[in-house]
Amino acid sequence: MTAQASLTPLLDRVQSPEDLKRLSRDQLPALAQELREEIVRVCSVGGLHLASSLGATDLIVALHYVLNSPRDRILFDVGHQAYAHKMLTGRRHLMPTVKKEGGLSGFTKVTESEHDAITVGHASTSLANALGMAMARDALGQDYKVAAVIGDGSLTGGMALAALNTIGDMNRRMLIVLNDNEMSISENVGAINKFMRGLQVQKWFQEGEGASKKAVEAVSKPLANLMSRAKSSTRHFFDPASVNPFAAMGVRYVGPVDGHNVQELVWLMERLVDLDGPTILHVVTTKGKGLSYAEADPISWHGPSKFDPATGEVVPSNAYSWSAAFGDAVTELARLDPRTFVITPAMREGSGLVEYSKVHPHRYLDVGIAEDVAVTTAAGMALQGLKPIVAIYSSFLQRAYDQVLHDVAIENLNVTFAIDRAGIVGADGATHNGVFDLSFLRSIPNVGIGLPRNAEELRGMLRTAQSQPGPFAIRYPRGTTERVPEGTWPDIAWGSWERLKPGDDVVLLAGGKALEYVLKAVGDLPNVGVVNARFVKPLDEVMLREVASRARAIVTVEDNTVMGGFGSAVLEALNTMNLRPTVRVLGIPDEFQEHATVDSVHARAGIDAPAIRTVMAELGVDVPLGV
Amino acid sequence: MTAQASLTPLLDRVQSPEDLKRLSRDQLPALAQELREEIVRVCSVGGLHLASSLGATDLIVALHYVLNSPRDRILFDVGHQAYAHKMLTGRRHLMPTVKKEGGLSGFTKVTESEHDAITVGHASTSLANALGMAMARDALGQDYKVAAVIGDGSLTGGMALAALNTIGDMNRRMLIVLNDNEMSISENVGAINKFMRGLQVQKWFQEGEGASKKAVEAVSKPLANLMSRAKSSTRHFFDPASVNPFAAMGVRYVGPVDGHNVQELVWLMERLVDLDGPTILHVVTTKGKGLSYAEADPISWHGPSKFDPATGEVVPSNAYSWSAAFGDAVTELARLDPRTFVITPAMREGSGLVEYSKVHPHRYLDVGIAEDVAVTTAAGMALQGLKPIVAIYSSFLQRAYDQVLHDVAIENLNVTFAIDRAGIVGADGATHNGVFDLSFLRSIPNVGIGLPRNAEELRGMLRTAQSQPGPFAIRYPRGTTERVPEGTWPDIAWGSWERLKPGDDVVLLAGGKALEYVLKAVGDLPNVGVVNARFVKPLDEVMLREVASRARAIVTVEDNTVMGGFGSAVLEALNTMNLRPTVRVLGIPDEFQEHATVDSVHARAGIDAPAIRTVMAELGVDVPLGV
Repeated sequence: MTAQASLTPLLDRVQSPEDLKRLSRDQLPALAQELREEIVRVCSVGGLHLASSLGATDLIVALHYVLNSPRDRILFDVGHQAYAHKMLTGRRHLMPTVKKEGGLSGFTKVTESEHDAITVGHASTSLANALGMAMARDALGQDYKVAAVIGDGSLTGGMALAALNTIGDMNRRMLIVLNDNEMSISENVGAINKFMRGLQVQKWFQEGEGASKKAVEAVSKPLANLMSRAKSSTRHFFDPASVNPFAAMGVRYVGPVDGHNVQELVWLMERLVDLDGPTILHVVTTKGKGLSYAEADPISWHGPSKFDPATGEVVPSNAYSWSAAFGDAVTELARLDPRTFVITPAMREGSGLVEYSKVHPHRYLDVGIAEDVAVTTAAGMALQGLKPIVAIYSSFLQRAYDQVLHDVAIENLNVTFAIDRAGIVGADGATHNGVFDLSFLRSIPNVGIGLPRNAEELRGMLRTAQSQPGPFAIRYPRGTTERVPEGTWPDIAWGSWERLKPGDDVVLLAGGKALEYVLKAVGDLPNVGVVNARFVKPLDEVMLREVASRARAIVTVEDNTVMGGFGSAVLEALNTMNLRPTVRVLGIPDEFQEHATVDSVHARAGIDAPAIRTVMAELGVDVPLGV
Repeated sequence: MTAQASLTPLLDRVQSPEDLKRLSRDQLPALAQELREEIVRVCSVGGLHLASSLGATDLIVALHYVLNSPRDRILFDVGHQAYAHKMLTGRRHLMPTVKKEGGLSGFTKVTESEHDAITVGHASTSLANALGMAMARDALGQDYKVAAVIGDGSLTGGMALAALNTIGDMNRRMLIVLNDNEMSISENVGAINKFMRGLQVQKWFQEGEGASKKAVEAVSKPLANLMSRAKSSTRHFFDPASVNPFAAMGVRYVGPVDGHNVQELVWLMERLVDLDGPTILHVVTTKGKGLSYAEADPISWHGPSKFDPATGEVVPSNAYSWSAAFGDAVTELARLDPRTFVITPAMREGSGLVEYSKVHPHRYLDVGIAEDVAVTTAAGMALQGLKPIVAIYSSFLQRAYDQVLHDVAIENLNVTFAIDRAGIVGADGATHNGVFDLSFLRSIPNVGIGLPRNAEELRGMLRTAQSQPGPFAIRYPRGTTERVPEGTWPDIAWGSWERLKPGDDVVLLAGGKALEYVLKAVGDLPNVGVVNARFVKPLDEVMLREVASRARAIVTVEDNTVMGGFGSAVLEALNTMNLRPTVRVLGIPDEFQEHATVDSVHARAGIDAPAIRTVMAELGVDVPLGV
């Protein structure tokens, strides 16, 4: 293909940040446009972070044009918006492998490239990391630059706000690019968000086409003066508003400026990145930039399924997700019980709560990306007579471990945790796998843990949760389940297991997703028993004793780390009962699992049906392995 | 005693908030003074939260005068400043039992009194709890009042800032009393703190004696106007500064006012508590108020040892704490290695870092009460070549579980966690016991866990931590150890246990504090072996296999919950090795342990020396039980 025929003539010349710097400034907008078009093609296979990557492309081009990565450090909060960064740092040819086994991560990852400053996936961590880097630089007498890109959604996380507080205090040289796309994954919430919206309606910014140029001019003159001034006197110099929380925290504030004008961003960043102390550059971007259908509906296009890039037509899916099953269940539950209240930390769509939030707007709260606040707000509600349900992904509940323990469990409050994406999540990889919840929750007194095997059991457990006095964590996986009719509210006794298949020689114990594998592996093998161990805490000790008294061997299977999880609980209980059958504990090994399909990770971990059959064979069961 | 002879004539008439309301407003200052004098007497036995309780007395009197507890809810952040609240709500006669077994908690506790709105001990939770309560009230169509008291230190916690962000957005009626005593437990840090200091130097507040009166007058006129105005227009009405982060977040701000003028506080609170939406009343208080020596040195008088109330003379202690041992070690270590950097989340004094912070000010960072920021800042430092040590209490590390996992462990970064107050802490009770760290850390891949038995091993492990590539958590208890000479840096091989006493019949495995009990229990009993199991992760599998191959029984002892802790790790390993000796797992039972002495809790939990001897006897060891 000749250069003329290429869809990406400029991008073809850029294999590295050095190549980028060989372009002239007026070529940068076209380069950004090429990047965006390629991102759309890459993302059309589905399951990738399209809208945020499009929105951040211009500012990423500007950052790499001004800074010298990897010497200078560029940090991306969450890291899912960094596709342009990957493409500019030698990984363009690998973009079709993003989120695939052995391919690129969907986020930035230190071990993937020297240009990835942090390994990330959870929100609100970039500012503390950047502070640590700036302080390391100064402590070691070095002089590189540090820049963090953080979205307005991530800034609602307390950790980011608290880090900003210390950044203002420590006063180290760093640039924070506040990528304000007026929404995070979900609709954005919170007062800081309102404030930012307020800034955007300032007159000088609203004058249309020439607005951003004027913004830059307004900044440039004081900027020249600034260079020769004492730091303290310039603190509030740029503030376009009299009420500015960033300035109040002691961080120099510049903005808002147009986040899609690359040349102006370059001009500004060149001047800001060398200023003493921390500077926030507030850029306004459009999520889905350049793609009309994504701009119009950025929530749907946050991480779309497979689609036609030309038309935006999405390949339809009839799958009924666990999230949808949960959403349908609580929407119905809240009709039955006026004390039901659902809280989400910025995951309305992901947790299946769109319908709920419309039907029960007064019993719905989105606290932003602040899992700790979600849990403790639920505690306050439970203390005053509500029955709150915190809908949360397993890996994000990790951020509220202490709130579960300190604010909910100590007083045994009736808070339900609906834990979505529990177990291996696959494509999102190590940062998002929910394979620790059984272990970290099990160590907390008073917390019950249930693993429904289908939507029917999920509903039964939600009902159990409402009548049970204390906290109850119900965990279910990413993926699909089967619809059940309205009004399905089966009775599930607290801590009760269920014998699904008789058999006393080898007995397999598993709940939730792992139970699927067990049933598939066992089929109708004689003498092999299967128990639906749907409660990990409390264990059904009566059934466990009965099983262990007769069985030659027990196999526990779980979609959770083997360290301190379900198998460990069974070992503890058997030890206390002074029973010693052979036990095989199958679960996720004690190492982080990189991105791949769920099936692939489960196969490698040795918990899928073939692996279970191998273990049964090792235990002497006559298993036709070929099946 | 006649009423005239009483030291506390007014307080004697107040058994409840209703009694308080029978006093006239001009009697309130004298009542507050009586409360303060009684608090000093109560606290002189040592170990109680003196300075903060004195500082909060006036505002507590005002709150109980204006609100109707328990119907109205008064929440105290951390809860250690609430002694006056306890005394005004029927618990005055029980104050000598504070923090003692079976006595009052040192914090507020829901099960202790209907007037205690939340059970607490950790900082920054009151605002999310208050939001939950206000939303529960509105959802259930009720109309009580909600007031939260939060210190300026607690407000540096991200969770409080994030909650404030949602509070500003949700706009529910509530009063937040910002108790600004210009310092938390440690010197206060952070930009918000600087901002508050800025407010206090306003001229109208600095005019001496009459200042607070003027402040109230300045507020009172607009307040009268306010009542008839639309809410939105009053948002920024009271702001005394043009830059106000609270107003920026959408929370009405009033202040700062004198937090020791009870009558003026009553006047203001009466007007503010019924306003629509959230209001922050910023009151300035003096920690240690009324006690000259405590006012002069509030950090030392935060929780003093036994002292003479008249003179402030403290009964001297020669004890060498584990915290001091850590502080001495890192002060020396930082001289040896320029990459050492110590981070504390607002616990300089408690973690033994006063000397360190003076000797190595450029390699020391206090991030405020923000454990998540502490851990992730350390991650950033480790990525850029430093060897950071996060000094943190065990129960506070619970607040950074995800940061340990997501920001440190995934990339196996060399961050050391120096975990103080691990195990049962005694008097501070359920919220502060550090009995979960072995369980929650053990589930995280790559994290090593060490339990030094004395200061020498602590130093050895700190040295090991610096040369080991990944994260290493070193946990040690509240209490004392023995001094070791400078230059003591023993070599402790990664994952190595140590056989302290030969013996193959019954072998006891324990590390850290539990090992003390084991050695005491075993003495020189023949055939009973003792292993210093100083690594909980990785286990010394070679030694464990050797022990388990020969021993008839193994006893594990740990100052940690039995759920998923050290004993559980041993059971897992033995099961994998297919070895089945009798194992007895001794540890803290799976329930929250209330305040009492450490010895008492350990005795009840069954891990002290007598309990261990009983277990050995049950296992058939010939133990002279009387010894």
